[in-house]
Amino acid sequence: MNAVIITIGDELLIGQVIDSNSAWMGKKLNEIGISVSKKYCIADDKNEIIETLDESSKKAEIVLITGGLGPTKDDITKNTLAQYFKTQLVLNKDAQNNVEAIFAKSKRTVQELNREQAMLPESCTPIANPRGTAFGMAFEQNGKVFYSIPGVPFEMKGMMSEVILPELAKKFNSSVVFHKTVLTQGVGESSLAVEIEDWENNLPSHIKLAYLPKPGMVRLRLSTKAKNHIIKDEIENEIDKLKAIIGNLIFGYDEDTMEEVVGRQLKAQSKTMATAESCTGGNIARMITAVPGSSNYFKGSVVSYANEVKQDLLNVKQEDLQKVGAVSEEVITSMVLGVKDLLKTDYAIASSGIAGPDGGSEEKPVGTVWLAVAGPNGVRAKKYQFIHNRARNIEISSLTALNMLRKELISKA
Amino acid sequence: MNAVIITIGDELLIGQVIDSNSAWMGKKLNEIGISVSKKYCIADDKNEIIETLDESSKKAEIVLITGGLGPTKDDITKNTLAQYFKTQLVLNKDAQNNVEAIFAKSKRTVQELNREQAMLPESCTPIANPRGTAFGMAFEQNGKVFYSIPGVPFEMKGMMSEVILPELAKKFNSSVVFHKTVLTQGVGESSLAVEIEDWENNLPSHIKLAYLPKPGMVRLRLSTKAKNHIIKDEIENEIDKLKAIIGNLIFGYDEDTMEEVVGRQLKAQSKTMATAESCTGGNIARMITAVPGSSNYFKGSVVSYANEVKQDLLNVKQEDLQKVGAVSEEVITSMVLGVKDLLKTDYAIASSGIAGPDGGSEEKPVGTVWLAVAGPNGVRAKKYQFIHNRARNIEISSLTALNMLRKELISKA
Repeated sequence: MNAVIITIGDELLIGQVIDSNSAWMGKKLNEIGISVSKKYCIADDKNEIIETLDESSKKAEIVLITGGLGPTKDDITKNTLAQYFKTQLVLNKDAQNNVEAIFAKSKRTVQELNREQAMLPESCTPIANPRGTAFGMAFEQNGKVFYSIPGVPFEMKGMMSEVILPELAKKFNSSVVFHKTVLTQGVGESSLAVEIEDWENNLPSHIKLAYLPKPGMVRLRLSTKAKNHIIKDEIENEIDKLKAIIGNLIFGYDEDTMEEVVGRQLKAQSKTMATAESCTGGNIARMITAVPGSSNYFKGSVVSYANEVKQDLLNVKQEDLQKVGAVSEEVITSMVLGVKDLLKTDYAIASSGIAGPDGGSEEKPVGTVWLAVAGPNGVRAKKYQFIHNRARNIEISSLTALNMLRKELISKA
Repeated sequence: MNAVIITIGDELLIGQVIDSNSAWMGKKLNEIGISVSKKYCIADDKNEIIETLDESSKKAEIVLITGGLGPTKDDITKNTLAQYFKTQLVLNKDAQNNVEAIFAKSKRTVQELNREQAMLPESCTPIANPRGTAFGMAFEQNGKVFYSIPGVPFEMKGMMSEVILPELAKKFNSSVVFHKTVLTQGVGESSLAVEIEDWENNLPSHIKLAYLPKPGMVRLRLSTKAKNHIIKDEIENEIDKLKAIIGNLIFGYDEDTMEEVVGRQLKAQSKTMATAESCTGGNIARMITAVPGSSNYFKGSVVSYANEVKQDLLNVKQEDLQKVGAVSEEVITSMVLGVKDLLKTDYAIASSGIAGPDGGSEEKPVGTVWLAVAGPNGVRAKKYQFIHNRARNIEISSLTALNMLRKELISKA
């Protein structure tokens, strides 16, 4: 079963607003077995709306329209729909009561413009909107269903969850789409493709694979449509095979983040950690503390940007800084052990590198980064050569350092 | 002049990725006088791509396509374009050198899949991509121009800024949109609107004002379309009037960030700084060190997440922690002075608060945050009550702390 999403609004076309609605809708529709086959984003323009409705109804059984239902002049969706479905606007009592109730709640006076929001196309099935003044509308024509709802995310989500998704699930549900995404860190997209080539070639034809790269990681999404849950086991089965090949690269699944995975491990083992950061400048600490409850395992960080801070707080030797420089195995080792001692933790990670754009040399070009992890089993330090701009080098260094800690934690477990 | 944007990728339709690219592109095209009349989001599907290219070329002079240029099997855009423009793929030497250079930089071996990325449609004008392995392509047909570029935001933005936008500006430009954005921090959108009401009502009718709120700040964008630069002086003139009203709230203009503005002040005054962070968890340090050259003025940070770290490193008194708690004027004052002493800097800022979702109490609800700045003129500490979720409370706390330092720096200057 296919759906098309039409988002209406000039603000979307001039780029003032990023459309996050249609992604949310796509996800929710997928969960009930409906695929979004195309999305259109168009202006508040009558001819454009009519043309796009025509196109859409040829492509899908379900057409979802958001936006253009506000009280101001630029909102023309409702009038255009009335014209398209050859019907007229009539006063809807429920919609009128809703508008009045909402205004009463905030002690405001109902404006004429809002009164007009209670006028709905005669042939539509109204969709209540307890969160805003614009009702939604459902139409049927030639076996296709059309829904028009507001673009305000919180109103849209309410109406989708409470009315439209349950209705569609009941009406069309035959098969369901299963997704599972495998999160990998450590190699690029093409190297990964080579490593898993045989596995990929042997995937059953009804299981689709997509490579989704993100800075510092590649996500592998397996998906399939099916009428029952057996297929879910099939996907799990394929992932088990994948684990046997690249288990060392997999750090999580679906919506996991590296910092959550590391946090869960630390919590499960009742261990604590700290960071000593030079080139990542506090970003690793920020990632860790973005997770609620991180105070259970994260004690703190020393961001030692200046060399004197490395010496004074982390016991880095002046001699090492002079001889081999801050971006070296000697210094990263002192840093990671220094912060572990200073903050009295079980584990620590550290970074020292040249994030760029300046500061590189022939011997140590921009992107040269030393990372280290320290724990009960001693220190592991590794040199990396990243190739990106400052922001990405910092992002990838942070992710890689956290992954080093993750591996240390599971190798111990 | 009209453009259509086509974004290609299954991940966009199933809602795994929110498309922020097309909003950015819409904004940039607008700035050079080109309107986006429609956006399409489609699957990695040959027939769909061809059909949408046909539709698009009927609607606009410019067709911009992103996505589907990766090295893996699901990426079919390039082959489809070759078919659509009736041409064949040939090896492009520049693209090949680019792939090899990128792999050499990170000391990885070029894979066969990446080698195929150097194959480009014979009739296209290649667009270099120094940030990734996929070149872009430009085509012309029946007076229409088509550009196909990768969907990776950082690569897309580079190619748009360096090649496509300048080319389009030259080719189609008639009148230009001037923008200037005033950045304010410290009050909400509606309070700001009240403060500048008279000024807003007296703006010339050809100068448009937009309020663009962002977490912790409100941006005021003045814009106008014109064929010459006289209008630019008019906008500057209006901004001068605005400064007289809300000069204390303005921290920068256009693409300025708070951390850059603070960094410039520190550099100009040859002063250094440090941070002591509890609830912001390293985020202030991260913001500061995101600016290239920040090592000139930023010495480091102590992220004192655990109370014992506050005591051991920052001289916070155990007595204070027990009596008034970590989120208090006493503790924030000790923290900010402690880190200033420890890292031997001219200035320091500190944060201690309850970011949420847990940890609040009746007396100190979630969002209670103490911030402080210390410098040659002593310490200023202030309590804030933010009302957002964890991520936003951290973001706003960081921005507000940096603004406290900025005000301290300019009051001294």
